[in-house]
Amino acid sequence: MSEITVVDYLIKRLEELGITDIFGLPGDFNFNIIEAIERNKNTNWIGCTNELNAGYAADGYARVKGYGALVTTYGVGELSAINAIAGSFAEYVPVIKIVGTPSTKNIAQKTLLHHNFANPDYFAFANAYSNVVETTAYLNSKNAKTEIDRVLSVLVNEKKPVYIAIPEDICSSEINDIPCIQKATSNQDMLDAVIKHIEKMLLKAKNPIVLADILADRFEAKDALYKFLNKTEYPATNLLMGKGLIDWNYKGYIGTYLGKYGNNTAYSMVNESDCVITVGTIYSDLNTFGFDYSFEPTSMIDIEGTYTTVEYIRYDNVLMKDVLLRLSEIAPKYIGKSFDIKPLGLIQEIEANKPLKAQFIYSEIQNFLKEDDIVFSETGLVEFGFATLELPKGAHLYNQVLWGSIGWATPAAFGATIAERNKRVILVTGDGSHQLTAQEVSSMMRYGVKPIIIVINNSGYTIERALCKNPMDLFNNIASWNYSKLPDVFNGKSWSIKVETEQELHEALINAEQEQKDKLCYIEICTDKMDMPKLAQDLIFKSLAKV
Amino acid sequence: MSEITVVDYLIKRLEELGITDIFGLPGDFNFNIIEAIERNKNTNWIGCTNELNAGYAADGYARVKGYGALVTTYGVGELSAINAIAGSFAEYVPVIKIVGTPSTKNIAQKTLLHHNFANPDYFAFANAYSNVVETTAYLNSKNAKTEIDRVLSVLVNEKKPVYIAIPEDICSSEINDIPCIQKATSNQDMLDAVIKHIEKMLLKAKNPIVLADILADRFEAKDALYKFLNKTEYPATNLLMGKGLIDWNYKGYIGTYLGKYGNNTAYSMVNESDCVITVGTIYSDLNTFGFDYSFEPTSMIDIEGTYTTVEYIRYDNVLMKDVLLRLSEIAPKYIGKSFDIKPLGLIQEIEANKPLKAQFIYSEIQNFLKEDDIVFSETGLVEFGFATLELPKGAHLYNQVLWGSIGWATPAAFGATIAERNKRVILVTGDGSHQLTAQEVSSMMRYGVKPIIIVINNSGYTIERALCKNPMDLFNNIASWNYSKLPDVFNGKSWSIKVETEQELHEALINAEQEQKDKLCYIEICTDKMDMPKLAQDLIFKSLAKV
Repeated sequence: MSEITVVDYLIKRLEELGITDIFGLPGDFNFNIIEAIERNKNTNWIGCTNELNAGYAADGYARVKGYGALVTTYGVGELSAINAIAGSFAEYVPVIKIVGTPSTKNIAQKTLLHHNFANPDYFAFANAYSNVVETTAYLNSKNAKTEIDRVLSVLVNEKKPVYIAIPEDICSSEINDIPCIQKATSNQDMLDAVIKHIEKMLLKAKNPIVLADILADRFEAKDALYKFLNKTEYPATNLLMGKGLIDWNYKGYIGTYLGKYGNNTAYSMVNESDCVITVGTIYSDLNTFGFDYSFEPTSMIDIEGTYTTVEYIRYDNVLMKDVLLRLSEIAPKYIGKSFDIKPLGLIQEIEANKPLKAQFIYSEIQNFLKEDDIVFSETGLVEFGFATLELPKGAHLYNQVLWGSIGWATPAAFGATIAERNKRVILVTGDGSHQLTAQEVSSMMRYGVKPIIIVINNSGYTIERALCKNPMDLFNNIASWNYSKLPDVFNGKSWSIKVETEQELHEALINAEQEQKDKLCYIEICTDKMDMPKLAQDLIFKSLAKV
Repeated sequence: MSEITVVDYLIKRLEELGITDIFGLPGDFNFNIIEAIERNKNTNWIGCTNELNAGYAADGYARVKGYGALVTTYGVGELSAINAIAGSFAEYVPVIKIVGTPSTKNIAQKTLLHHNFANPDYFAFANAYSNVVETTAYLNSKNAKTEIDRVLSVLVNEKKPVYIAIPEDICSSEINDIPCIQKATSNQDMLDAVIKHIEKMLLKAKNPIVLADILADRFEAKDALYKFLNKTEYPATNLLMGKGLIDWNYKGYIGTYLGKYGNNTAYSMVNESDCVITVGTIYSDLNTFGFDYSFEPTSMIDIEGTYTTVEYIRYDNVLMKDVLLRLSEIAPKYIGKSFDIKPLGLIQEIEANKPLKAQFIYSEIQNFLKEDDIVFSETGLVEFGFATLELPKGAHLYNQVLWGSIGWATPAAFGATIAERNKRVILVTGDGSHQLTAQEVSSMMRYGVKPIIIVINNSGYTIERALCKNPMDLFNNIASWNYSKLPDVFNGKSWSIKVETEQELHEALINAEQEQKDKLCYIEICTDKMDMPKLAQDLIFKSLAKV
């Protein structure tokens, strides 16, 4: 039986999960961990400018690649990153948070080292984390192997973040090198039972419809969902978080479900259906446009990551992927009402000197998107701008509609560029959000990745202007930056521009298409303080006020 | 009995504590709180670029002014700031963390609003905070008044951060307007007993010496300490965190205690004394230069915030200030050994084109300091650079030696400029640290404050190069920024320069003295990757390796 050090074992297992790039910052208690990443030929250390940004980058990487990892020092470093990990927890993004701590001797003796309280508490930070991850582990010489295997099993099966603390001296402890991740499988009897129940439902359904959401992607059931859809040709829609999950070219696609202010076809078909098949859905306020739906998922068919509920009966230990694959074998073909949806009315004339407004901006962005693009849309107005766009084949939209932490998208897009170096990554963010984490643009330039960054500068927190009593209240103002000069501060190869009119934006996007081939592109779009996508206006002024 | 809303009551009490400026970011669950700050004529809302920075700014403000306050939205906002509050907790900085949460109705019904997990947990974030603050409160319609009074009493008496969550609807609940902060007082019998015990010790002491540290400042005992020192003329030194606590002009001042590599007089006098009187000391690794002291405080006289220990006997419920004031009445005058300390050997010739090294840089900074300056020194090498400098009368040095969160100093210095608009604030930071929080420079410019920012650019994490196995390991590199161009991105009035030689630095400081009168000054000092103050070299290579 070959032996291996604790850190080498951990990094090897992460590599097997496809984590070839690990984000973080060094600190004097995590050198051993970073050295192990460098020692492993197939893993790279990606240094970020601060820990919150590193956490967001690991989250963005995991959304694109399946899993992500973050390494920080203890106390100061890990606490700075906790909001990023909580966001991963909220939205089922499997990120492993690894922290290097002082040695077991110092912990046992309660030595007052830096990064602790005057009365040292070596467990305070792991305890804080226990509120925002699925499980935590604190390694020692006895539990190292079993605890690593346990937390990795949780990461893989639950698709949720886990936390692991490794004392300095434990890093080099030797353990055996036999991987032992327990991958969950479906219980076959339960699977037979749930399929039988669903089959009965589908046979009597007159207007079945599929409502899919982001967890279908997280639980690796996208292919199975397609198989099911292609077989049945059921009409299908998705919630905002799951945008892009169902291909625009799928025969039964009826567009994104956006509540009563959005797409009428999807709204009426879902709410009038006698059999809504929900797959991996999250019913949060914004994802449902103010809880604007009138069916109860568990009363019909609700297929979730590890369980399915049919007519209020919950079947546990059945994996989403297995349920969908089995259904694709037995489900009847769609014979319900026919339907059609309007093509997007996007073509518009450019008025050369006209100031920029949301409708024009998002129409230009729609035309700019191409196949296989990776698009990150920041929390706030941008996600409503994207809500009514459609994605070309293979393109993927990433947002953070549930957790909604402003600043997330910039470092998350950095993580995505590292995860997919051969795809075009487009980041669209507002100015208020961008200020929180803007320094991560320097990491993009340091690592030579080439996203297209679009900053919509509306001079403050416009979504909050819309939500608070007095839109012009001073607290929604922010510092006024020359955004397009940022890349110059950060060195490296870049092309940047500030645009104020329709013609300028149109030309900037044409140029960015070329410039992006060998450099980072940065476009600052200036617009009015109260300008916003129509959908956001409708939602905020007509629906959210009532929640 | 007059009635007042919950938020107005809270803000009024903060104002009475001297908190006239409250830091934070708006979010859709804290508008009510910010509106109350704006409604109160004597309190100002200070918007920051992100929540961690806002937390650091509140910490810096509290260090200078006594108390500080931070307001964020819940979930995303509060978690982003938790590291700043943990730092305040570690170093006894009384900051109140206020968070606006969803309404009690939404909490009771577990409505899935944004900024929460898919299975909502409205207490997860308060639970996370409970690990890094002295106490937490979650207001409801019944407990609002008593809980506000309780947490403010803890803030005032314990000098530690407290956390308070206010649901949206509770903000406008009405309570009575009778302030009820319970200020701790000394138990008079206990005070008599401890003074009697100390008097006995002092009468037999041959070489008494005072070792003071930062908690003497936090527990508002600085004046009492001076009274005691001026009366007794005991020799006195301070630890690094308490630097500046004892005036350079005090007759008995023997310089800062820096372990065996520093000031010989302080080192030998402390370790050879038969009666060390410790006042508000923190014995952390870095504050004691690798635990380099050979006495046991509790075996002699240890005067802490709310208790005193004499010959291992602990006297509780006696306030530091009261003990020192009573001692100043009865303590005998110093009759021990005479001593002298060498003046600082700082005068040096400038070699025009000589590249900059730490010795020259800190010598120039020493000469640049003037009376009443407020100086923030960042964690890392900078704090060792400042360790051997001395402060002019009334000048105050702020550092974060125990918690040591890199990035702290930039926003903390912003907080200080808001706390003391009429004093000169000087920030000295390394490049690695500055990158974490650099956007807060834009808040300085937005609010028109005029610190002098000195960024020592040594191309990476130099202190970590010294601590890790291979100094040139890639993980200690960082993105290469044109630091001196940052103010230009952030707009506003500023003067910035990049210097590489002795002559350039010397002239830059002369110019900054003038320019600072009406604008922010920003000086980038370029130096070598491995250049560091001698004290840091000695400590790292000779002492810390053994901890």
